[in-house]
Amino acid sequence: MSQFQLEIRVKPRPGLLDPQGKAIHNALHSLGWDSIEDVRVGKVIYLELEADSREIAVDRVHAMCRKLLSNPVTEDFEVSVSEEVEAEPL
Amino acid sequence: MSQFQLEIRVKPRPGLLDPQGKAIHNALHSLGWDSIEDVRVGKVIYLELEADSREIAVDRVHAMCRKLLSNPVTEDFEVSVSEEVEAEPL
Repeated sequence: MSQFQLEIRVKPRPGLLDPQGKAIHNALHSLGWDSIEDVRVGKVIYLELEADSREIAVDRVHAMCRKLLSNPVTEDFEVSVSEEVEAEPL
Repeated sequence: MSQFQLEIRVKPRPGLLDPQGKAIHNALHSLGWDSIEDVRVGKVIYLELEADSREIAVDRVHAMCRKLLSNPVTEDFEVSVSEEVEAEPL
């Protein structure tokens, strides 16, 4: 068993309105940053979990994303492993 | 002028309570995923902007983070450049 740190990025699908991104875009413009062309906001979820291998950890997190962490109608997700810590042998 | 796509990850500081992460942790446990040890939730912001160089783009986004996009008391941020598109010469 190893311990994995995974990063999940959940992002609004292209083409869908993103009111939070629009609000940030407007706020940045009004502060003088007018070279910005687009802003989109999603969430990032940092997970620590134990699994036998990297593939099993990633598969498990994909299942979590489909079932709970993202809305398949409006959002896309990406999973990446940021760290793997080998468990000490007993 | 080149166009840059940047990704900003804003994360709750270590040690601070993260009620949204705790709620997700509990929900995943109750769905049977009990090998999870920690969950933390932040936001990810995708920005497209024009700048003369990569360094200028990153510096500008750091300033935006300090001024608007993150709360320095409770959050840390990381900036990475995900794509650079050279502008066509006129």
